[in-house]
Amino acid sequence: MRSIETTTPATPMAGPHGYTLPLSPSGGSAMVTPPPWHFSGDVIMVDYRVDPAAAARFLPPELEPGPDPGEAAAIFAEWQWCSESGAELADPARCRFAEFLILISCRYRGRHLARCPYAWVDSPVPLMRGWIQGMPKQFGTVHQIRPVAVGRAGPRLAGGGRFGGVLSVDGRRTAEATVTLDGRIDRPPPLHTVPLVHTRLFPSWVPSEAPLNRLVVSEVTDIEFSDIWAGSADLRLLDVPDADLAGLAPVEVGRGYVFSYAETLHHGRPLTDDDR
Amino acid sequence: MRSIETTTPATPMAGPHGYTLPLSPSGGSAMVTPPPWHFSGDVIMVDYRVDPAAAARFLPPELEPGPDPGEAAAIFAEWQWCSESGAELADPARCRFAEFLILISCRYRGRHLARCPYAWVDSPVPLMRGWIQGMPKQFGTVHQIRPVAVGRAGPRLAGGGRFGGVLSVDGRRTAEATVTLDGRIDRPPPLHTVPLVHTRLFPSWVPSEAPLNRLVVSEVTDIEFSDIWAGSADLRLLDVPDADLAGLAPVEVGRGYVFSYAETLHHGRPLTDDDR
Amino acid sequence: MRSIETTTPATPMAGPHGYTLPLSPSGGSAMVTPPPWHFSGDVIMVDYRVDPAAAARFLPPELEPGPDPGEAAAIFAEWQWCSESGAELADPARCRFAEFLILISCRYRGRHLARCPYAWVDSPVPLMRGWIQGMPKQFGTVHQIRPVAVGRAGPRLAGGGRFGGVLSVDGRRTAEATVTLDGRIDRPPPLHTVPLVHTRLFPSWVPSEAPLNRLVVSEVTDIEFSDIWAGSADLRLLDVPDADLAGLAPVEVGRGYVFSYAETLHHGRPLTDDDR
Amino acid sequence: MRSIETTTPATPMAGPHGYTLPLSPSGGSAMVTPPPWHFSGDVIMVDYRVDPAAAARFLPPELEPGPDPGEAAAIFAEWQWCSESGAELADPARCRFAEFLILISCRYRGRHLARCPYAWVDSPVPLMRGWIQGMPKQFGTVHQIRPVAVGRAGPRLAGGGRFGGVLSVDGRRTAEATVTLDGRIDRPPPLHTVPLVHTRLFPSWVPSEAPLNRLVVSEVTDIEFSDIWAGSADLRLLDVPDADLAGLAPVEVGRGYVFSYAETLHHGRPLTDDDR
Repeated sequence: MRSIETTTPATPMAGPHGYTLPLSPSGGSAMVTPPPWHFSGDVIMVDYRVDPAAAARFLPPELEPGPDPGEAAAIFAEWQWCSESGAELADPARCRFAEFLILISCRYRGRHLARCPYAWVDSPVPLMRGWIQGMPKQFGTVHQIRPVAVGRAGPRLAGGGRFGGVLSVDGRRTAEATVTLDGRIDRPPPLHTVPLVHTRLFPSWVPSEAPLNRLVVSEVTDIEFSDIWAGSADLRLLDVPDADLAGLAPVEVGRGYVFSYAETLHHGRPLTDDDR
Repeated sequence: MRSIETTTPATPMAGPHGYTLPLSPSGGSAMVTPPPWHFSGDVIMVDYRVDPAAAARFLPPELEPGPDPGEAAAIFAEWQWCSESGAELADPARCRFAEFLILISCRYRGRHLARCPYAWVDSPVPLMRGWIQGMPKQFGTVHQIRPVAVGRAGPRLAGGGRFGGVLSVDGRRTAEATVTLDGRIDRPPPLHTVPLVHTRLFPSWVPSEAPLNRLVVSEVTDIEFSDIWAGSADLRLLDVPDADLAGLAPVEVGRGYVFSYAETLHHGRPLTDDDR
Repeated sequence: MRSIETTTPATPMAGPHGYTLPLSPSGGSAMVTPPPWHFSGDVIMVDYRVDPAAAARFLPPELEPGPDPGEAAAIFAEWQWCSESGAELADPARCRFAEFLILISCRYRGRHLARCPYAWVDSPVPLMRGWIQGMPKQFGTVHQIRPVAVGRAGPRLAGGGRFGGVLSVDGRRTAEATVTLDGRIDRPPPLHTVPLVHTRLFPSWVPSEAPLNRLVVSEVTDIEFSDIWAGSADLRLLDVPDADLAGLAPVEVGRGYVFSYAETLHHGRPLTDDDR
Repeated sequence: MRSIETTTPATPMAGPHGYTLPLSPSGGSAMVTPPPWHFSGDVIMVDYRVDPAAAARFLPPELEPGPDPGEAAAIFAEWQWCSESGAELADPARCRFAEFLILISCRYRGRHLARCPYAWVDSPVPLMRGWIQGMPKQFGTVHQIRPVAVGRAGPRLAGGGRFGGVLSVDGRRTAEATVTLDGRIDRPPPLHTVPLVHTRLFPSWVPSEAPLNRLVVSEVTDIEFSDIWAGSADLRLLDVPDADLAGLAPVEVGRGYVFSYAETLHHGRPLTDDDR
């Protein structure tokens, strides 16, 4: 099987072009803008444990289970994002999305990393941007509770504040989490601080081609956390039509967290560069 | 023409019941819960002026133009809401909605009030709740920029912060506003503090009936404002298919505001009770 | 308690007006156009039986169980609709909607009628139009399989053709039905041919008011059926958060039907007019 | 610059796998199923002409303008689709989508082909499937009028029948078309019968990589047309935020068509294989 060949035109700007489809004369029609991409978001996160054997089945051969096998997390987040130009912030219909994702702990040559087996977003540009970086984003409906500063229609960021998130996929309630705050903590939840290792996969289409399939680590900078509130948590996977996903249901639920978070995502680095 | 007759069963709980449809044996299927309703929201508001004659055509005969004829406002808001029990806050898919509305200034026997000629929400329960109170809510897609506390993907609540809101109706971009903050102010924007006077209208269906048609003033308590930021503003009505709405386009745009706001909405009072 | 008073202005066109909110100078902003309303739709219907005692609890005191207590039906439909002018057909974004509803059999003074305890639509104008006529429409996501005339991506309207419909409410898969055709039949399914009796309910808002609450029978003309295909059927109520709705789950599933249907809906008639 | 390297594991099933992301132990979590994919749809199509120079700017250097430069078409379609197993037809929430696309005429070494510079779909799986085959699908809201067999809420497939389609992108009404039928024709519209040539583009992510960028021709079989109705047509590009897309606005509008269509899409063939 031949590997995918790429065409590198001698004059790259001859003809329509763009970072992604659609290609167009100016390059300005591309659905996705090139990185870096800036993100600022509000997060509801729950630590939990999965069956370590189930988690291991989601790791490609190059990766080993993390230092604490079965360590996992479920994350609801509401994001704003923009490209380097910030242009997207001028159109509120384009710069916001909501996300739910699962993380499991893993290692590569002793380095602690996180693997995202499943993620859902409610907006198409983040979905496609996910696939570019190897993050397996699908479409879902994601809602979460916001803290309020005035009035009674929501929790305060304070002890007793109760936050929740829900995910629906194809009209099925797939995941629910709640976090009831009891105090502030000093350090971010561990799985939110280790690098993510993704499989950049683009399937074959011409029969003789092999798919693009490469392990990459995301390079992020400008990480910022707000105050981090923690508390007791609950997490349920519910009407899950996919047996593989069902394997990642919680066997134990840990602490929950509510915080704001920002990062800038630049590009990927081949996992094997860590060998150097 | 007879007026609408109401049936007041001697034993009200005989048969299915509920505050609204659907009626059911326990009353628990009602789409809308009875008031009071609590609201906490984030607001982007723009003061503007319309042609005073156009505004006057939106006022029922009982109401006169406000002290400053042509005074109007456009308001984007993201809400959380709950009933007295707070039950809705347990389901993030149900307790949030976004809204865009227009206010025009009016008076009744010398009292300053505001009239809402148009409003759009992105969620069906708030739409129906609007009609119960006489607020002419329709369905639209509403997005607005949120302030961020960390990172670069959004404005800070600080001088120079640029906020925007957009409304689409039936897939047409209908309204856009931006506010660029320059400082905090001490008092809320005037049109956000006067009571709203609505027409509670329920159309006829049986041929001999007259529609229900009554002017009511909304009774709210527990009003709370966060810090109020103000700045320069822009507002545009764009692809408007409705000639009446087009009559309320800005002839001048004033200041803009960004703040959080809360209230509890209890019930309505007949406008004419103010005669007492 | 006073009944709701209506204001019948001496000069009805003084001030903003309209069949419904929003009122506007020309009347042209009204969200809902006045009847008659024409409907043409594609229907997947399943006859089923509920616990007769549960069905009886959904009937107001004026109505008795139907001749065959426990007789019920579940109906998926994709509609096009328009007002008398046909104007809505010029905007495909406005003239289509999908619906799921439940019917139970009932009687009034010996006359066979049907009662709709629950209905969901995916579009706001049909929702509001439902409440005007007393039909308890809520918001849901409704999908159904279409017959195909070419290719392999769907069933033919022929023996063996398998059709399905699904309803999701607030992101929960609430109902599913399938029908596998075995042949054509000569008469429409019985519950699709009897008049509907609804409760036109508009809740109180001013504390001293009683709600509008009146039993009305819908007046339709120009009923048209296409060929009617019938077959074996399945029906499930699934992730139902509402205990009252759960009471209408099938205890037995009967035949299923696939057909096109049209009607014109004119107005309502008080149920008690049948006494004459 | 190195071209993208692919990893072809010696034991392909070691570790999580799948045709696309998400990879999972059984392979069953993949968002997109492998081809072939069957499609059955209802089409509203309008022939039109663009500025030939504008069209040429959308063609990669390997392609020349078609035999009639400036020949273009706009297509609205409502699809059902399924994989080889047909499994998707069991879930009506997954097997339907709506699409709008533009085609322009082109040639490769004398062979007549069509190029799709822009396409929009309302569902994420078709979007991603588009990118796999090189079709530049983005997210849009697409609605079209359906023919009716009964009643008055829609056109008949007959002379005088008036059909329309609308596209909204990010809440902006971007395209509208109408077709008024005058009779049946014997042959399909030319641009609906020539093969599509796409650019399979997957952007770079690791800095040293070149993007995947390859011209491929889609291989389809089992093409089926229903009766084809034709008539006069209108087409407008409206609130278009993208200057490149605006370059493809109609300079002349030709005939319109309404028909059903089916095909099976198998895989791609490198464009240069046509050299053989």
